[in-house]
Amino acid sequence: MSHTQSLSDTIIALSTPPGTGAIAVIRLSGPNCIQWTAENLRKPKLLEAESHTAHFGLFRNPEGEVLDEVVTTVFKNPSSYTRQDVVEISAHASDWIIEQIIQRYLQQGARYAEPGEFTFRAYMNGQLDLSQAEAVADLIAAESQEAHRLALHQLRGGFSREIDHLRQQLIDFASLIELELDFGEEDVEFADREQLAQTVTHILSLIQQLIDSFQWGNAVKKGISTVIAGRPNAGKSTLLNALLKEDRAIVSEIAGTTRDTIEESIVLDGIPFRLIDTAGLRDAADTIEAMGVKKTYEKIQSSAIVLFLFDLSSTSPDQLKADIAEFRDQNYHIIVLANKTDQLSAPELSAHQKAIGDIPILPLSAQFGQGIESLIQSLIQFARDSQQQAGSAIVTNSRHHAALTRAHEDLQRVLEGLQTGITGDFVAMDIRQALYHLGSITGEITTDDLLGNIFSNFCIGK
Amino acid sequence: MSHTQSLSDTIIALSTPPGTGAIAVIRLSGPNCIQWTAENLRKPKLLEAESHTAHFGLFRNPEGEVLDEVVTTVFKNPSSYTRQDVVEISAHASDWIIEQIIQRYLQQGARYAEPGEFTFRAYMNGQLDLSQAEAVADLIAAESQEAHRLALHQLRGGFSREIDHLRQQLIDFASLIELELDFGEEDVEFADREQLAQTVTHILSLIQQLIDSFQWGNAVKKGISTVIAGRPNAGKSTLLNALLKEDRAIVSEIAGTTRDTIEESIVLDGIPFRLIDTAGLRDAADTIEAMGVKKTYEKIQSSAIVLFLFDLSSTSPDQLKADIAEFRDQNYHIIVLANKTDQLSAPELSAHQKAIGDIPILPLSAQFGQGIESLIQSLIQFARDSQQQAGSAIVTNSRHHAALTRAHEDLQRVLEGLQTGITGDFVAMDIRQALYHLGSITGEITTDDLLGNIFSNFCIGK
Repeated sequence: MSHTQSLSDTIIALSTPPGTGAIAVIRLSGPNCIQWTAENLRKPKLLEAESHTAHFGLFRNPEGEVLDEVVTTVFKNPSSYTRQDVVEISAHASDWIIEQIIQRYLQQGARYAEPGEFTFRAYMNGQLDLSQAEAVADLIAAESQEAHRLALHQLRGGFSREIDHLRQQLIDFASLIELELDFGEEDVEFADREQLAQTVTHILSLIQQLIDSFQWGNAVKKGISTVIAGRPNAGKSTLLNALLKEDRAIVSEIAGTTRDTIEESIVLDGIPFRLIDTAGLRDAADTIEAMGVKKTYEKIQSSAIVLFLFDLSSTSPDQLKADIAEFRDQNYHIIVLANKTDQLSAPELSAHQKAIGDIPILPLSAQFGQGIESLIQSLIQFARDSQQQAGSAIVTNSRHHAALTRAHEDLQRVLEGLQTGITGDFVAMDIRQALYHLGSITGEITTDDLLGNIFSNFCIGK
Repeated sequence: MSHTQSLSDTIIALSTPPGTGAIAVIRLSGPNCIQWTAENLRKPKLLEAESHTAHFGLFRNPEGEVLDEVVTTVFKNPSSYTRQDVVEISAHASDWIIEQIIQRYLQQGARYAEPGEFTFRAYMNGQLDLSQAEAVADLIAAESQEAHRLALHQLRGGFSREIDHLRQQLIDFASLIELELDFGEEDVEFADREQLAQTVTHILSLIQQLIDSFQWGNAVKKGISTVIAGRPNAGKSTLLNALLKEDRAIVSEIAGTTRDTIEESIVLDGIPFRLIDTAGLRDAADTIEAMGVKKTYEKIQSSAIVLFLFDLSSTSPDQLKADIAEFRDQNYHIIVLANKTDQLSAPELSAHQKAIGDIPILPLSAQFGQGIESLIQSLIQFARDSQQQAGSAIVTNSRHHAALTRAHEDLQRVLEGLQTGITGDFVAMDIRQALYHLGSITGEITTDDLLGNIFSNFCIGK
């Protein structure tokens, strides 16, 4: 969409979800919305209505026929979401009525709002900065407590303050450099290069912390990717079902039943996990199954946690050691699960434990639900550790992550420049670049393309 | 549902449709809703808020964590829909947030509203009578201008006034009879039997008019049932497509393509029609097709209009006469359409017209869209005639239709009693029955079962 459209149009949209319900809310924003509503309700007094007041009335078409009994709430510039005059019409949720009401306003000169255009106006009129506006969309999409907490923190400006703080440090630093440039001919150095380098190093570490937090922020937004891996018939699908407490995957005793990966979401203690059941890891004769195995490896590559399941009754310590080997030295957290412990009296894990060393083994009977609670606790523990590591300011948005990464690169060049004694104007250029990238996060600096991209992902009516 | 539940509970429901959107509205009604909202928003001032005012605030859980930024609108007893204190919370339309907010109120002591319970309270507190309450559900379901007009007329009390007027006439009449009963021993007759019979006859004709209007009221609610009939390959599916302006039915040149009936809705000039394409009328060799033919006859039986289509290029006047014969003397309106007129130069209809007499034939080329506009005008004309015939007070609800039919039967017995000189107490009993049935329409007289039936068809949150 193009956000070069006039901010002074009066825009309209259905703000509640379409479908059957008791009421629907139609929202308008712009200079004419109260005037037109007063005409439609035959209520001239509405023009003098105070902000934040609700008014019962009969919505009529130009011929005077009643379309519906509605409640109209008036929010006056600047005490509204968009900082313009806003009218919200609560009507009966009939498609026919909604269509008639919207058509009436279109006749009067309103136009359909584009996706996110109300929030766009809130941003343009200084009600929200860009990262806060983005949080509105995240908030609506949030499906777990943690995702919701991060979105709300961002909406309430927590993340923006963090970025502003970084920018301020950088601006202070830049002003020293710029001052030097003003006296360029005289070849003075106001700023101690050693001290400058320390400041940049400090800022770099703060940015790096934010960049690192994206791993957690992204995991929370999409669910922590948790792959269930293991040899065929180890009980992977049964474990998935036990965790989901329902029969999602087809379970059979024929090795190689799961041909494709199956993804399911669960929320444990407010944190979302994406559970990925995978095809058995073996050289598959069957081509379709072979494709499943390939997918498994891809899924494992991009996961945060690998639950490696083995059948205790049929797997030797050496075999386990060999199977685990390929997962070591990777970036993910491994939990090794000894399955089918119910088939053994007093299951003996010490030989297996000794074979794989430091990675603790959890005993499990996926079929009978034994050990599932410990596994869940261990998943939550991992999540809490990751959360703590991520700190309090969390990057959840890949656009912000990219901007921070760019700013980090810019400041790396600044640091190198300071160390190699490069001239002030080059240093200043890189600092300006870093400021540009940081500024793009909160919208201090924007382009039309950027705005179009952000707001077009919104739903209509927001 | 049981509507014996306390009216003094504070009830809660999501009033907007579920799904993705910008905002969702959660509605509460009952004595505690403002108090609890003040606690959740940490806004003690809300307790003194005036009716019809909107308040921005942060909705918090008991631990003080912010769940969402919301706008709360307060409607105070008795100036609300339910005539109780009502709070509407406009939150971000995230399932997670909605769930958290509702859960919070349940903890405080609210309970989930049953379907229609807000409207039930409006009815119990005298805001709406029963027929008006029923109109609310009709209004939400209305999909055409006429259906909407009837529902709104009923919601605004038009139909109730009609019924009240009838009841008043009957009560005046009854009081004379009851007076006679008081003097029963003395065998006096205050009321002239001849005059009484005239009054009852008048009331009977008014009720009959309302009963008759149901044919229109029901047609508008469900669409005027319009069957497209004719021999195989006459072009029935092509006609349906031409009317719908899209390819809905499978059209081929093999006779007997349409095996099942196909129903589609169109709205012409604000009036809904249900178009029913039927299997060709012939002795089908194929069993599946034979079932289609059987269905065709059933559909024709219950339709208001039959569009009988014939292929002018291959149907003799005698054959047409024979085909039409079975549709004569039935209750429906027949429109005869001579199809494929494009295949003849200067189509000659006079022999066919002569053969079937009074029913006018419309020339048509369904394939090339010729004559479609005249057909549409003729359908609209039929609808407008039916509308005029139905009068201004229209029965749209089958419950009302049944009650009126019962009241009519009761008054028939009254009339017969007066004519055969039956004693006053029997006459009085039948009048009381008629009053009971009329009273059940607006809810002067109700039973729990009746209320349960009516409100359980509502959507949640209304």
